[in-house]
Amino acid sequence: MRQILIIGAGRSASSLIQYLLGKSDSEQLKIVIADLSLELAQKKTSKHPNAQAIALDIFVDSQRKAAIEKADIVISMLPAHLHIEVARDCIVYKKSLVTASYISDAMQELDAAAKENNLVFMNEIGLDPGIDHMSAMKVIDEIRDKGGKMLLFESFCGGLVAPESDNNFWNYKFTWAPRNVVLAGQGGAAKFIQEGSYKYIPYCNLFRRTEFLDVEGYGRFEGYSNRDSLKYRSVYGLDDVLTLYRGTIRRVGFSKAWNMFVQLGMTDDSYIMEDSENMSYRQFTNAFLPYHPTDSVEIKMRLILKIDQDDIMWDKLLELSLFNDKKIVGLKNATPAQILEKILSDSWTLQPEDKDMIVMYHKFGFELNGVKQQIDSKMVCLGDDQTYTAMAKTVGLPVAIATLQILNGKIKTPGVQLPINKEVYLPILKELEEHGVMFHEQTMPYLGYRPDAVS
Amino acid sequence: MRQILIIGAGRSASSLIQYLLGKSDSEQLKIVIADLSLELAQKKTSKHPNAQAIALDIFVDSQRKAAIEKADIVISMLPAHLHIEVARDCIVYKKSLVTASYISDAMQELDAAAKENNLVFMNEIGLDPGIDHMSAMKVIDEIRDKGGKMLLFESFCGGLVAPESDNNFWNYKFTWAPRNVVLAGQGGAAKFIQEGSYKYIPYCNLFRRTEFLDVEGYGRFEGYSNRDSLKYRSVYGLDDVLTLYRGTIRRVGFSKAWNMFVQLGMTDDSYIMEDSENMSYRQFTNAFLPYHPTDSVEIKMRLILKIDQDDIMWDKLLELSLFNDKKIVGLKNATPAQILEKILSDSWTLQPEDKDMIVMYHKFGFELNGVKQQIDSKMVCLGDDQTYTAMAKTVGLPVAIATLQILNGKIKTPGVQLPINKEVYLPILKELEEHGVMFHEQTMPYLGYRPDAVS
Repeated sequence: MRQILIIGAGRSASSLIQYLLGKSDSEQLKIVIADLSLELAQKKTSKHPNAQAIALDIFVDSQRKAAIEKADIVISMLPAHLHIEVARDCIVYKKSLVTASYISDAMQELDAAAKENNLVFMNEIGLDPGIDHMSAMKVIDEIRDKGGKMLLFESFCGGLVAPESDNNFWNYKFTWAPRNVVLAGQGGAAKFIQEGSYKYIPYCNLFRRTEFLDVEGYGRFEGYSNRDSLKYRSVYGLDDVLTLYRGTIRRVGFSKAWNMFVQLGMTDDSYIMEDSENMSYRQFTNAFLPYHPTDSVEIKMRLILKIDQDDIMWDKLLELSLFNDKKIVGLKNATPAQILEKILSDSWTLQPEDKDMIVMYHKFGFELNGVKQQIDSKMVCLGDDQTYTAMAKTVGLPVAIATLQILNGKIKTPGVQLPINKEVYLPILKELEEHGVMFHEQTMPYLGYRPDAVS
Repeated sequence: MRQILIIGAGRSASSLIQYLLGKSDSEQLKIVIADLSLELAQKKTSKHPNAQAIALDIFVDSQRKAAIEKADIVISMLPAHLHIEVARDCIVYKKSLVTASYISDAMQELDAAAKENNLVFMNEIGLDPGIDHMSAMKVIDEIRDKGGKMLLFESFCGGLVAPESDNNFWNYKFTWAPRNVVLAGQGGAAKFIQEGSYKYIPYCNLFRRTEFLDVEGYGRFEGYSNRDSLKYRSVYGLDDVLTLYRGTIRRVGFSKAWNMFVQLGMTDDSYIMEDSENMSYRQFTNAFLPYHPTDSVEIKMRLILKIDQDDIMWDKLLELSLFNDKKIVGLKNATPAQILEKILSDSWTLQPEDKDMIVMYHKFGFELNGVKQQIDSKMVCLGDDQTYTAMAKTVGLPVAIATLQILNGKIKTPGVQLPINKEVYLPILKELEEHGVMFHEQTMPYLGYRPDAVS
């Protein structure tokens, strides 16, 4: 039996574990699931005979080293900043490593050591980063192999609620870390290139500069710009591309409504509000509105945000109980962002029967044999339930498939890497299709960056 | 002859030097003007027999110490962060010190040493901080001395262009550090109290939440909130006050127009724009607007800012040459804020014949003998010319008057301090009136914070 050590048994590990246990007999695998909580690890074994749960505090060197030494390959599903100790031990005990996180500087520094020991340190092989890299590079490489020249690359991804569970005015529920949703877009202007011109969008305008995206069978979505559109320019070999844009997908209308919070200052995480603990939701809202001796919070809100009587934006606010004077924040020394997260969690937490959905959308513009063309590539993945969510599947399956490929010597180029080479992405994308994670590509005349013409 | 050492002969030192030279015969003063530039120091002597210019590099310990040792009292007009070395030498050589800057933590730490040596370290005795403290504390102390209870304190100050030189669409020119004007309001939400409720305004809404201020003979102004409204709450003894608000004064319409820059992201100082050096003003503007293959920068700007055909806001933009494709930025590796400052400086730099204006406006709400009342106190100071500007007068004269009072033993309480005690502010305010810096107070029924009723 070959031993696969999975460190971290949180929600994103469910589909990963399910896949590996499913292969454990035919592939002769023993799956060791390690977590700080032995109970959680045990639960994730599903009492499968090839699974073993162990309690592991990764800050205890002896525990961590012992577990890694026994394994044949290691998967770290820990929060990104905790990978590095695991990675260093993997060098010492000569084990390959797989993570779904961005390559940190510390991780990158292990590249030479990994190569020296012929180890594969595969990172960024979840959803985003992960499936985005693989599905993009597949099309980009195909275009280049035919002699085409890339002109445009746009890439969007979003974690949303599945249509069957989409039952609030925002068409949104939290399917991943709520704090990241509240803070999205903060910390600097978004920067990207459109038709050769650098463009910059400040936070206060970010959610008003969306574009529409249509996905057959699922209707219309919108995308707002990520801050880091130029991050993979060189990695993808797109240094000369005229348009490079990465964005986040939401249902139409979400961004315009979210912008209300931005304009009011409710997403600010830089200061603590006075007496946040005893504040009602209504008082929270009123703290961002001018004082008036008699005008209501409601009328002040309508005026400052210019919300007409019959505007659905108003119902979005009402739905969140923002004017409720009975609901109490109950958080000590909280920032506006922390309080908003609390308020949104009341309404946007997935219910037991709710399902989630992942949507990814790439646009590739290129010139081939003197003709400008475009390929749009789209993927929708629906969650099965609250355990095998679309997020767990799209993050966990590529990690699991890559791990087995490395263990079986199919992926063998050593070093610290991300999945941008054919050797890696082709077999993984193929196997993902069997699990319903499938991209649909359409070829069309080149639209370029013409939002009026797109869709 | 008693020697007064003035370190720093920049623009804010003109009226200060003029005042002290005027008193030099009757008061037996020798005025030593020290600057890194001997030429500048010499110019500021006006060849007065009681003045001496010296070259002084404050980073050269021996030069600095020698000059301070010879003096009877020291005035530092250096940038705020450079006072501290001067202050430490003043302790060593037992000289009192006067500055117009905020008390830094490092300065505050010298309090015990100053008291031990019976030295007055007077700070924040310029305009703002300075005249604001003195004129506010005078009215607050008068109210308290009568047995009144303070309910409200609002305080506004602005450096503007004088009416006779007010000839652009913005009704504004740079009369002080342009960079501070461009960055105003950034770095965190504005926080204040209105009628007992804490209120917070994010940067993106700051310039849309103004209030009007009328000054007899000068018409209507507007004020936007400072970030630090609560800073002097305890210093002024206003811990229980219901409304506390500090703001910056502009002519009506400035803030609404400035908000265009905020919304576009042109005031951002956190990143460097690509190829800023060779960028035209038009390209700068276009970098904040969506790409379109045929629509003009102008129409995109009108759309994103919702500027109607007949809106004066448009003329404000045109006046700044924001759509000019011939004017080149010419700044290497510049941030949007640095480029905007350059563009504004083309239009907003004071011309040789231009005069400036300082406006200060306080509102004091209080209850006395069971009756709620309000006092509004207003001051307007006009510059004489480009040397004896309103800014130079209002910053320099209180410094000069305080220096002489300390030298003559009239102000004698030792320690690191700001001018909030009667001993200090009464004689200074009285003498300022002789120089045209005069507050006009009006008593009226209590208006409280009711913007509709005010004015």
